[in-house]
Amino acid sequence: MPSTNLTFASRAAHRAWLAAEGALPAGFRVGTVRFDFIPREAPKPAKMTLTLIALDRPTPDFAAVFTRNAFPGAPVIVGRQRLGAASLGAIIVNNKISNVCAPGGVEASERVCAETARLLQLGASQILPSSTGVIGWGLPVEAMITALPSVTAALAPGSILPAAEGIVTTDLYPKIRRATVGGGSIVGIAKGAGMIEPNMATMLVYVLTDIAIPRATLRAMLTRVVNTSFNTISVDSDTSTSDTVALLSSGQVSGVDQAAFEQALTTVCRDLAEDVVRNGEGVRHVIRVSVQRAATAELARDLGKAIVNAPLFKCAVAGNDPNVGRLVQAIGKHVGAHAPGTDLSKLKLTLGGIEIFSGGVFQLNPDKEKALVAHLKGAELYASATPKDGVFTAPIDYPPHERCVEINVDLGSGPAAAIVLGGDLTHEYVSENADYRS
Amino acid sequence: MPSTNLTFASRAAHRAWLAAEGALPAGFRVGTVRFDFIPREAPKPAKMTLTLIALDRPTPDFAAVFTRNAFPGAPVIVGRQRLGAASLGAIIVNNKISNVCAPGGVEASERVCAETARLLQLGASQILPSSTGVIGWGLPVEAMITALPSVTAALAPGSILPAAEGIVTTDLYPKIRRATVGGGSIVGIAKGAGMIEPNMATMLVYVLTDIAIPRATLRAMLTRVVNTSFNTISVDSDTSTSDTVALLSSGQVSGVDQAAFEQALTTVCRDLAEDVVRNGEGVRHVIRVSVQRAATAELARDLGKAIVNAPLFKCAVAGNDPNVGRLVQAIGKHVGAHAPGTDLSKLKLTLGGIEIFSGGVFQLNPDKEKALVAHLKGAELYASATPKDGVFTAPIDYPPHERCVEINVDLGSGPAAAIVLGGDLTHEYVSENADYRS
Repeated sequence: MPSTNLTFASRAAHRAWLAAEGALPAGFRVGTVRFDFIPREAPKPAKMTLTLIALDRPTPDFAAVFTRNAFPGAPVIVGRQRLGAASLGAIIVNNKISNVCAPGGVEASERVCAETARLLQLGASQILPSSTGVIGWGLPVEAMITALPSVTAALAPGSILPAAEGIVTTDLYPKIRRATVGGGSIVGIAKGAGMIEPNMATMLVYVLTDIAIPRATLRAMLTRVVNTSFNTISVDSDTSTSDTVALLSSGQVSGVDQAAFEQALTTVCRDLAEDVVRNGEGVRHVIRVSVQRAATAELARDLGKAIVNAPLFKCAVAGNDPNVGRLVQAIGKHVGAHAPGTDLSKLKLTLGGIEIFSGGVFQLNPDKEKALVAHLKGAELYASATPKDGVFTAPIDYPPHERCVEINVDLGSGPAAAIVLGGDLTHEYVSENADYRS
Repeated sequence: MPSTNLTFASRAAHRAWLAAEGALPAGFRVGTVRFDFIPREAPKPAKMTLTLIALDRPTPDFAAVFTRNAFPGAPVIVGRQRLGAASLGAIIVNNKISNVCAPGGVEASERVCAETARLLQLGASQILPSSTGVIGWGLPVEAMITALPSVTAALAPGSILPAAEGIVTTDLYPKIRRATVGGGSIVGIAKGAGMIEPNMATMLVYVLTDIAIPRATLRAMLTRVVNTSFNTISVDSDTSTSDTVALLSSGQVSGVDQAAFEQALTTVCRDLAEDVVRNGEGVRHVIRVSVQRAATAELARDLGKAIVNAPLFKCAVAGNDPNVGRLVQAIGKHVGAHAPGTDLSKLKLTLGGIEIFSGGVFQLNPDKEKALVAHLKGAELYASATPKDGVFTAPIDYPPHERCVEINVDLGSGPAAAIVLGGDLTHEYVSENADYRS
């Protein structure tokens, strides 16, 4: 479960909550603009949103982590260079095209940075670029430069909600999380989970704070926090070429305890990571796996990932079917392949708090079966309905609740633990990724 | 492509081919029986088929390889012990229940072997048991023992087709492949691909030959051949708890060149492996990835597996969508995580023989896009159609052709190569595994 336990009855209720949750920390402004353009590779009209997140004054205190995909997007290549810059003044984000392995991609990204910098009276190295969208297409640089003055003119303090909306592609709803600590605040936004728009690849996360934390401390913290938040989720096991998490401090609130800050940052990032899963492609159930008493932290996390990535178990969850044989299969596959010496005789498994496996054998009966079905149904975000045209789409554009399918895996053989979040595998996922032509 | 390039216009044409392909080698008989029973765990009527494959005389020359899942089924545990027996006389196979982690599973499997042995006037250690079906349920031993005399009475030479039909669960059609070499023959049958019946887990393969090959040679050969056939396929990345490949020689044809035999065995196993994929859960396109000039054989095979297991690319193939960005994502994910030092600047990618990536960037244009779509459509086994009840099922029960989606990955950086086969990810897969309750 996230740190909250929210329920929403309507999109309007969710939007009101987002607007409040998104109150910007001191020292930041955001602006967006949406415009039409014609892609070179597929000559038909398309729409792009440019989102600008600007600091009132450039800051030396920023941190970022990027995808480990061996084909990083051009903005990721540029972003890694920016980590060496003395200060950062703004982030410029576009959706629709991810600028990955396109001819001249880095040059295109640098031109957008240079023009943004000119308008903000900064240097190009003070601008962090991000792109999300179709892999392989090139950025429409001229159209973007034409639109940029409208973005800088739109810059405003208040809520981060316009930016949270501007970076999305086909996300069902924007994602914002905040925490307050020691007189300051931390506000984060995220888009995506896997590849939400057909042909798209990206998760983008931006976290802003007014709390002063030195650059080196901020960077070490972000690495630790990402490892226990975004690095523990998987919607579909595909790793984006554009994944980026950036953290910027305006430094306007000083004297905040660093441990308290890191705890608050962890809460914001874990809640955002869970939001990303809950709004993942076709996700109708969030699956939360807690692996305990594992020999190593790596085994704990990898075993959790193996469970939330096992397609047959994901399908069973989608059907509210407590097919625990598939769960045991997934554990046995991972341990057999990656930790073959593990003694599994001590394994205890629960689903929804109900013991289903111990002492080397299943512990099942018809009453437990009914309780397991009830647990799965209680965690369902919405019921699937077959549309007339055969294309399955989600009937909601807000998260009705924050409940999960709760799985506990006690290996009984060591000190390590991990919590991993994933989603089920549904007709809505296949429709989003197979039924539409790119 | 398999060693054949068959097309079938109807189920009748396919059945006629199967009956001929299934001519039993000298020294073998097969029999089956189907009966009703009531499972303990879900007290409603179910059906089971018992299949017996018997040698006219027990043979010392047999080999078997089993699943590496850390929760092997009871028949796999018993089967590993059988490898130490002096000779083998028969294989007894049941479907419907896989006998995995059920209380008393090994004892149940041994009782079925003992009764089969009594009827055949053999010892229990001369019987290899196999089970496929629901994970977690226990075998209905009494009902099986009651049915066994009917199986032994049904034993007949001729075609292996009854056994190929007897071991299936919800496979769309039986799978048989043969090769002749030096006056003898090799005939193999297979069931499954991933978990074909809801709640089921298994791939079972039995290969029979009348060609005399000594036990130690046979076992070494089987390990080599399985590594380049069944171990290079993946329908859904889930590893069964029951996977078994068994090879039995009746020894009636001697003097056959061992290298020629191994080549013929390789052809039979590769063709059967491809049949398993083609009849895999919801598979509408077989995807064949040839990885070339890789640094190591492990990287070549694992990279091929990463491509055929990447859900977003699998969905794109299902939609006849040449979304090559998702293909590059899958390669980048695997190399970034498992071979981060690899120089990808020499990567050349083709799809259907059409170059799509080289020199570090995509090589795309609208004409190529049309040709790529045509290649994908040409490899489609059947078109998906939305049924009124929302449950997608295959409209065919025979393989109309043997064409594949052909992907070539030239890493340009080493001596190793591998060919990996997989399938697309479709509404039919989700329907089979989520829409039916177990």
